Amino acid sequence: MTIGFTGSPLLRHNHERADAAELARQLADPQARLLRLEGLDPVVEAGGGLSWGPLAEREPEVELALLGTIAGRPAFVALTPGARGKPMFTLLRVLAELATPEAATWGAARCLVDWHARHRFCARCGAATQVARAGWARHCAACDTDHFPRTDPVVIMLAEHAGRVLVGRQPRYPAHRYSALAGFVEVGESVEEAVARELFEEAGVRATQVRYVASQPWPFGGSQLMIGCVAPVESDALTIDTNELEDLKWVDRVGVRAALANAAEAPFLPPPEYTIANALLTRWARGE
Amino acid sequence: MTIGFTGSPLLRHNHERADAAELARQLADPQARLLRLEGLDPVVEAGGGLSWGPLAEREPEVELALLGTIAGRPAFVALTPGARGKPMFTLLRVLAELATPEAATWGAARCLVDWHARHRFCARCGAATQVARAGWARHCAACDTDHFPRTDPVVIMLAEHAGRVLVGRQPRYPAHRYSALAGFVEVGESVEEAVARELFEEAGVRATQVRYVASQPWPFGGSQLMIGCVAPVESDALTIDTNELEDLKWVDRVGVRAALANAAEAPFLPPPEYTIANALLTRWARGE
Repeated sequence: MTIGFTGSPLLRHNHERADAAELARQLADPQARLLRLEGLDPVVEAGGGLSWGPLAEREPEVELALLGTIAGRPAFVALTPGARGKPMFTLLRVLAELATPEAATWGAARCLVDWHARHRFCARCGAATQVARAGWARHCAACDTDHFPRTDPVVIMLAEHAGRVLVGRQPRYPAHRYSALAGFVEVGESVEEAVARELFEEAGVRATQVRYVASQPWPFGGSQLMIGCVAPVESDALTIDTNELEDLKWVDRVGVRAALANAAEAPFLPPPEYTIANALLTRWARGE
Repeated sequence: MTIGFTGSPLLRHNHERADAAELARQLADPQARLLRLEGLDPVVEAGGGLSWGPLAEREPEVELALLGTIAGRPAFVALTPGARGKPMFTLLRVLAELATPEAATWGAARCLVDWHARHRFCARCGAATQVARAGWARHCAACDTDHFPRTDPVVIMLAEHAGRVLVGRQPRYPAHRYSALAGFVEVGESVEEAVARELFEEAGVRATQVRYVASQPWPFGGSQLMIGCVAPVESDALTIDTNELEDLKWVDRVGVRAALANAAEAPFLPPPEYTIANALLTRWARGE
């Protein structure tokens, strides 16, 4: 199965980003295209593709980032200050119309535009910064510091015990939805340590092992790298962290399969297909 | 084998960080301790432990972060502005004297102190920010934004072909040293995509699969999460990226074992024991 937000056809050419002559050449390429966005959200064409226009479509004062090339054609996005997007759960319905590799290209663009919009000043000295490296950095001339787009690693995991996995429910979820538990990896932690800490904090269970399964870039709430794991735990006795979760439940393979099939008797509604939580449940239900 | 910078005995209590009364209680605890640092570097006691002192040891105007508790005792570090550390290759020799779990605690502290020192202003609006959440955030009162310590995910990998793995040499390395290739995960990429992109950019090889092996927090150059992988590739024909590397070589298990044993006939000097590159090579040499 393809995981949501992966498989973009974009070639990033990231070793050429600091080359101003190369950027000028790509800008002058008659094949160059501009990704159309509504704020931060994608414009979906009939057939499930992203919508592209000529570079001339942009507001003249707005700067561009060179995402890379797609099938040899330079792909740009406008770094519109203050661009905002729809709430995630609304947008996931729009994304269902978009082919997965197209959603992956959009995700990279969204992260970049959003990062520039929220990082226009130097965290080191407070001065205003300028777009650099073809849109993949900002430079502070006042203290001569380069700043690069931020991606936060997040662990997302299924605790596993006696043939069942643990799913949890946050108050903000749609009714009946449950998903894998998750949390940010902190400074000074490995993936395995972050998984164990989050499971103990949120559910009171102690991991005896951590198995990596898959990863996914997640273009909401900044840019996140979701690192999906399964972790066998010592016991199924739960201590719920009510600051984060309103319910936890253990579900066996029959229940997970029913949930993924949206069956009437399913014990919960599953996370959307775009999410790595869905992929974790799907692979676990298949015994992978 | 234990991987460097993992296994800290620190309990982070991160759900209590926003609780000012809890922080006051930990500050008033007569068992509370202050981690001694020289700039950003550890002070190593006889026996391989970190050095701790009373909270009163700190400069009175310097703010504190609550790292967490160790064996029930509150563990603080001073957020000294402008703290600097020794170069990494120098410091790795100091770290060789420090027990691994102690190095892990120091690594978390170093990342936190270094992050505060380099992020004293709001990236969104440019105003000066204040320490918040017991030292695990900075708050901008001007635009009401919280900023959290940054950790950059990095992929580090061994390409594998016909019983050999690929190691590369950066110009800054000590003489004869080779290591795994590595690079930052960019916005909009999965771990697997970043591994494939980096291997193609730096060595011209195409990954057919990516296997996760292990991870490591790396407390230099900001805070990095090193995600270690092995990736079988289509062919052993190489195209070196001379901007990043000065040499690449394929090495078989006999050669890797000789390198790890520092044997006279070894084809290269291995990365230091603290690194995940060393762990990747060790596990691969054992056939794991």
